[in-house]
Amino acid sequence: MWRDLAPIGRNTTTNGYRRYAWTAADTDCRAWFQAQTEARGLTYELDRNGNQWAWLGDPTAGDAVVTGSHLDSVPDGGAFDGPLGVVSSFAALDELRARGAHPTKPLAIVNFGDEEGARFGLACVGSRLTAGQLDKDRAHALRDADGVTLPQAMERAGYDPEAIGPDPERLARIGAFVELHIEQGRALDDTTDGKDTPVGVASAIWPHGRWRFDFHGEANHAGTTRLEDRRDPMLTYANTVLAARKKARTAGALATFGKVGVEPNGVNAIAGLVRGWLDSRAPDEETLAAVVGEIERAAVERGQRDGVDVRVTRESFTPVVEFAHDLRDQLSGLLGGVPVLPTGAGHDAGILSASVPTAMLFVRNPTGVSHSPAETAGEDDCLAGVAALAQVLEGLACH
Amino acid sequence: MWRDLAPIGRNTTTNGYRRYAWTAADTDCRAWFQAQTEARGLTYELDRNGNQWAWLGDPTAGDAVVTGSHLDSVPDGGAFDGPLGVVSSFAALDELRARGAHPTKPLAIVNFGDEEGARFGLACVGSRLTAGQLDKDRAHALRDADGVTLPQAMERAGYDPEAIGPDPERLARIGAFVELHIEQGRALDDTTDGKDTPVGVASAIWPHGRWRFDFHGEANHAGTTRLEDRRDPMLTYANTVLAARKKARTAGALATFGKVGVEPNGVNAIAGLVRGWLDSRAPDEETLAAVVGEIERAAVERGQRDGVDVRVTRESFTPVVEFAHDLRDQLSGLLGGVPVLPTGAGHDAGILSASVPTAMLFVRNPTGVSHSPAETAGEDDCLAGVAALAQVLEGLACH
Repeated sequence: MWRDLAPIGRNTTTNGYRRYAWTAADTDCRAWFQAQTEARGLTYELDRNGNQWAWLGDPTAGDAVVTGSHLDSVPDGGAFDGPLGVVSSFAALDELRARGAHPTKPLAIVNFGDEEGARFGLACVGSRLTAGQLDKDRAHALRDADGVTLPQAMERAGYDPEAIGPDPERLARIGAFVELHIEQGRALDDTTDGKDTPVGVASAIWPHGRWRFDFHGEANHAGTTRLEDRRDPMLTYANTVLAARKKARTAGALATFGKVGVEPNGVNAIAGLVRGWLDSRAPDEETLAAVVGEIERAAVERGQRDGVDVRVTRESFTPVVEFAHDLRDQLSGLLGGVPVLPTGAGHDAGILSASVPTAMLFVRNPTGVSHSPAETAGEDDCLAGVAALAQVLEGLACH
Repeated sequence: MWRDLAPIGRNTTTNGYRRYAWTAADTDCRAWFQAQTEARGLTYELDRNGNQWAWLGDPTAGDAVVTGSHLDSVPDGGAFDGPLGVVSSFAALDELRARGAHPTKPLAIVNFGDEEGARFGLACVGSRLTAGQLDKDRAHALRDADGVTLPQAMERAGYDPEAIGPDPERLARIGAFVELHIEQGRALDDTTDGKDTPVGVASAIWPHGRWRFDFHGEANHAGTTRLEDRRDPMLTYANTVLAARKKARTAGALATFGKVGVEPNGVNAIAGLVRGWLDSRAPDEETLAAVVGEIERAAVERGQRDGVDVRVTRESFTPVVEFAHDLRDQLSGLLGGVPVLPTGAGHDAGILSASVPTAMLFVRNPTGVSHSPAETAGEDDCLAGVAALAQVLEGLACH
């Protein structure tokens, strides 16, 4: 399966993946999913929000056990974030069938669309729409960097943007959703008490959000404007980047500026506008609000010194997600007491957890690198992930 | 004249100009220059490097008095930087003719190509080629942000890139070159001793250069990578931006980071690479070298703390330019003792000064804003500039 999927959307310069929603690379990934579904004689469904489903058994019978993940990527992302969950789902199903297991409940594999939000700036669009956490009007207003709206992009890819919206009937058929994902840190690798722990179970997702900081100064000539006449927003931005790291460290939280836009962005021009995006996450919502508030205050204070106006816009916010305790304990039991750990990353499983009992499995990531071509997982660990997922599906659907 | 030139290459969102070398906007500016030339019955010449010339009198007679400037712009530049010099040259010639002055030497107006270097990253390409300060191979290797090479761009605009190179015969015909330019600071406006000083004469151009700082860290997931596991180049960049301001202030120099590139530049990705361009200038070359050296040391030191590799590449360097003292004093005398001031900005006049006696006139800029749509000059001051230039041309060419 990996062989067919590997070249899709791969940038040969960076070796990273650029599989953005409703692009040609995305279409190729979707064709791959449909081909895998049909090759196994599963029932293929495309839902109103562009998520793909592969069913074993009657989709309408109810109490279904669903697994899966996503196939899209961040800019220059790695091979495993998303695809490992989808590929492992098909492989786990193959294993169940090979060992002659008889599911008593319907089983399904899902590929959620636009999980990373790389193109339109909002993560988990496919699952949010389905769960009613993103309304149609707001989705229709999303635009990519070239000004293409989500409905335009969907239409160009051959989908009907008018059909999108909440899908409670579909969610009501699901008894449990389990998403397998490569771990995005080194917690499993750091469990150095002698145990070999290739797989873990998720406890919770930290609350997290994205804030856009607009630093408005005055564009001017870098060679002739006296330092005292300048209103240089790059200085305010730089100071805010350093303040964010400091505030996060003190609070035990995470804060990152990883995306910047500058106008006019010329070598010999003092910037007129610097736009920086803050990604911040913390163990609880109170801490998160405090950290972001402190960063904003530091930005405004420095801005006053630089003659720079600072405006902060919250672009997205996801509250803390506690995965269903029953399901989590059941999985941990089925897998013989594997580690239970929290994560700072958002997932479709986090979105769905508000509607259906949801759990996640993590596969060890020895370097902890994520959202980068350097992301890796050992072959043995991937196979251990498939075995664990097969175990879980059998435990949930075959008894 | 302004009416026809004003809409060319204007971005209606920012109101700034985007007149980059060998683009459609540049072609339109060139057509405007040729039309102005022909409307006045002047002799039109296009030289081997794409610079345009309008001659009154015999171009080959020698000891010519030449004026002019450039028509291209920085990204979202103002209306005056460049065009004021070209428009004023035509207007000054009109004034000379209207008052029945009889030039005893040939007079010419020039539009130098690609002065700002906005597209290919190197300033004054047209005058550098002509003066033999940029060789053909190096010019042919220049690429824009889309990977288009200079020869490809020239060809697409209908010019022959094989023809470019030094043009000493042309320079040998020039007895004096005078460039009129909007001032890019507030020195003329700050002369508040009661005198009305709309025009000044240049003494020197500060030495200046561009250095690219590459900060290599490790791209990673912003939501799952512990702060202590990060190698975040954005931190090193931010610290370097603040260090640059501090070192420049201490030394009485200028240092600016106005252009940044980030990879992968995703909201939820720690950057793997941050590229920042430093523009720095100082009253003398020793100070400039010291300031840039200190900034580089600060970057490397902070990089060691952040696990970030710092590489610095000098992309361009222009030594100090002292304009010809005789000509400068002659101009100041012709204009009744106007202020004489240095500038931090590079100009085609600076390039030519190595080959021919060269001078510059500055027109007052009340806000000092430059390289921005907010750049302005008062109408009275522009007319005073034309009058001063006419005076200078008459003084140099008609006696």
